[in-house]
Amino acid sequence: MAKLVLYHYPTSPFSRKVRILLAEKGIEFTLKQENFWERRRMFLALNPAAQVPVLQEFDVNNKQTYLVSDSVAICEYLEERYNGISFIGDDIFERAEARRLSGWFNNKFYYEVTKLIVDEKIYKFLRNQGEPNSNCIRAAKTNIKDHLDYISFLLRSRKWLAGEKFTIADITAASQLSVLDFLGDVDWERNPDVKEWYCLIKSRPSFRQLFDDVIPGFEPSKYYKSLDF
Amino acid sequence: MAKLVLYHYPTSPFSRKVRILLAEKGIEFTLKQENFWERRRMFLALNPAAQVPVLQEFDVNNKQTYLVSDSVAICEYLEERYNGISFIGDDIFERAEARRLSGWFNNKFYYEVTKLIVDEKIYKFLRNQGEPNSNCIRAAKTNIKDHLDYISFLLRSRKWLAGEKFTIADITAASQLSVLDFLGDVDWERNPDVKEWYCLIKSRPSFRQLFDDVIPGFEPSKYYKSLDF
Repeated sequence: MAKLVLYHYPTSPFSRKVRILLAEKGIEFTLKQENFWERRRMFLALNPAAQVPVLQEFDVNNKQTYLVSDSVAICEYLEERYNGISFIGDDIFERAEARRLSGWFNNKFYYEVTKLIVDEKIYKFLRNQGEPNSNCIRAAKTNIKDHLDYISFLLRSRKWLAGEKFTIADITAASQLSVLDFLGDVDWERNPDVKEWYCLIKSRPSFRQLFDDVIPGFEPSKYYKSLDF
Repeated sequence: MAKLVLYHYPTSPFSRKVRILLAEKGIEFTLKQENFWERRRMFLALNPAAQVPVLQEFDVNNKQTYLVSDSVAICEYLEERYNGISFIGDDIFERAEARRLSGWFNNKFYYEVTKLIVDEKIYKFLRNQGEPNSNCIRAAKTNIKDHLDYISFLLRSRKWLAGEKFTIADITAASQLSVLDFLGDVDWERNPDVKEWYCLIKSRPSFRQLFDDVIPGFEPSKYYKSLDF
């Protein structure tokens, strides 16, 4: 028996990824919101990188507490520690493909799209750092087109991003997109197949928890909670 | 039996990480240098992210070719595909810690230090984009101090970064540092314990292959190849 606490922030796509994975695996957990940019001393002790998510696991049997941070490390940990369906995949080559695409959205998509928009729109607002830089927003809105087209390209020959199974690749991509969707920054009309794929993920019970997320000063976009948008 | 080709670039810390891991695991491979920024059509077909490293594996038995890209995916793949010592770790918590720290250097260190210096000094030169931006270099040189101090902090209670064993955490960190060391951008006198740790890694046969790397227009720093610096 273990008690899990996840330190997260609503607009962190990496927190969202872990929340969805936990729910998909049927693991119970408690959420704690962490304003990570405040660099609280207690939080830095949990993760000196001062980033969310951080997973804290208290093992009731041996009274030990385990800490895992870095969202990739957390996902691999959950896969190794908890039985059940694997969301990385069973076959070694499927696993490599799921990890490749998860890496694509964790890194390439994040730095080319999500980070530009979230830093400018949300974190600047939360930290009173002035108006968003419109060049950054524009760059992100140009960059996202190639990524949506790439998802569309993958879906032409596959049911899910990494193959025939729903994997961490889908979870990672949808987590990034969901933050942008909250802000109304995804053009869902560009690729109907991408919209359909995202709708399927949005309908999963694991995803519903994201609908209640609140970001002070921001209203979710009109279709954020809608399964039929 | 499999034949492995690794597409790499000498100044890519992610390529270096995979090269060291391959050598540590005793896996034979052929290196192919890829000027990834040229975005050759043939290379984009191997990895649409247009990034190195890319691992191409030809299975002599079933005549299949497997492609893996994203350096994290490649390292996990090599661990799953090839037997022998695990460089992620054996125990589940050790593995989480090795992956956490590997993530630290893949992401935090890379974006706060390596990328700033390599983009400004090397890629601008290779692409004829003018002089390095001195603000970027200065920021990187400030940022690296905290990272070196953090390595030193870890080494106060551990033999290697993630614990008592040499892992992917050490390989990842040393790969990032080795690129900066080539350029003479690491102040090795700041933390004697970090220098000692790096010397031990530098002495490993797996690391020697990096000494012969050539970057057109750049001379390696005075101590780059020296084991006693």
